Amino acid sequence: MRVKCTVWYDGTYFYGFQIQNHERTIQGEIQKALKQICQEDIIIHASGRTDAKVHAVNQVFHFDTQKEMEPWRWQRAINHFMPEDIYIKHVEIVDETFHSRYSAVKKEYRYYLNTAMYNPFLAHQVYQYGHSLDILAMQEASTIFLGKHNFASFCWYDQYGNTIRTLFEITILEHDGIIEFRLIGDGFRRYMVRHIVGGLIQVGAHRISKNKLKEFLDSEGQKKCLYKAKPQGLYLYEVTYDEK
Amino acid sequence: MRVKCTVWYDGTYFYGFQIQNHERTIQGEIQKALKQICQEDIIIHASGRTDAKVHAVNQVFHFDTQKEMEPWRWQRAINHFMPEDIYIKHVEIVDETFHSRYSAVKKEYRYYLNTAMYNPFLAHQVYQYGHSLDILAMQEASTIFLGKHNFASFCWYDQYGNTIRTLFEITILEHDGIIEFRLIGDGFRRYMVRHIVGGLIQVGAHRISKNKLKEFLDSEGQKKCLYKAKPQGLYLYEVTYDEK
Repeated sequence: MRVKCTVWYDGTYFYGFQIQNHERTIQGEIQKALKQICQEDIIIHASGRTDAKVHAVNQVFHFDTQKEMEPWRWQRAINHFMPEDIYIKHVEIVDETFHSRYSAVKKEYRYYLNTAMYNPFLAHQVYQYGHSLDILAMQEASTIFLGKHNFASFCWYDQYGNTIRTLFEITILEHDGIIEFRLIGDGFRRYMVRHIVGGLIQVGAHRISKNKLKEFLDSEGQKKCLYKAKPQGLYLYEVTYDEK
Repeated sequence: MRVKCTVWYDGTYFYGFQIQNHERTIQGEIQKALKQICQEDIIIHASGRTDAKVHAVNQVFHFDTQKEMEPWRWQRAINHFMPEDIYIKHVEIVDETFHSRYSAVKKEYRYYLNTAMYNPFLAHQVYQYGHSLDILAMQEASTIFLGKHNFASFCWYDQYGNTIRTLFEITILEHDGIIEFRLIGDGFRRYMVRHIVGGLIQVGAHRISKNKLKEFLDSEGQKKCLYKAKPQGLYLYEVTYDEK
């Protein structure tokens, strides 16, 4: 029996999604709960990892088990063991062709940045930038990322492998001094969203131009553009699967 | 020289505003900073205390010092020493007739309650109630508190003294499952807002009627109505002073 779960979590006090010995992780907390519920060791598979301090609004994972329960019972059982910063929003029983990572066709990340006065209530939930940014310049520059590209210049140093991804949408909005970046694509490499947002912040602060940013992208990894925006502003917002 | 400061803080990890030995308090953090800046012991006076876990959006305090600095320098100096959960929003030099507590003519508190799905991002910032409430019934019942009353039935057990207060406005709004209570009055006793909101929640859950709530109020302390709403939903929102 394959169980698909949608979960949201505040990543502040986690060392990321992936299980690690002696560190608090989202996978670790959930697997500990499943062991209690199923009385067996269960490994969960997420749509992708999130790094330390990164949040999720709709992360998806699945696991296989012998235990049969209705979805609402799974939800209640797992949430019973969850700490206050993780909550299972939805549970579905799926067939074995479904895989949280391989079946995903689209992912949306959002990034929040505060250009207004420091806000203690959002200390861990947005990047407290504290200066104004040229939103129009960022919006114009963001279009260079649209479509299929080799994003090697915006990926982590030691990432080789396939860095070709397609970005379907990139939107930049502002409300009360909070800037929201929405990125929708077929997938993102590690730190890729943070490097894209980091590069756009440089444009918004008039430190580099749109053309310079495009040079980085076109160099396909020869010239890295690794202004990495802080993790606390990043949210895995949505994972989309093909309707069957 | 009298300095007036407006401060916001996330009260989650504080034992309240008032200084206490060996506990983390807002007053303690600010006085520690002022000692560094002024090289003398300074006592700050707030518009009122807030309890453990209670937040403030615009708390006001003042202090007297020999040190002369421009307001923006005071703000920068104090914020330099502030932890991430406190931020000084505004500083003014005022004359000696001003007093944060005695000069206040109006105070606004807000209370937030989540009737929708548990939200891990708001674990400490709203009361996670998790059930729907009859907002119309609460709105109707809330009118009994308007005007001048002896609020003894909605004050802490061992509070005698003057429990007569005037409530100017009480508003209940709902947005995406978050219910917001706004209370504006000439002053509030300890736990008074939490008891009023707690009583209204009972009405909204159809556990007590508007008439029953009015009986409590009219009994002037003979019959206490002490359903105390949790601290994490409460915000000292604004303190108003007479324009001079």
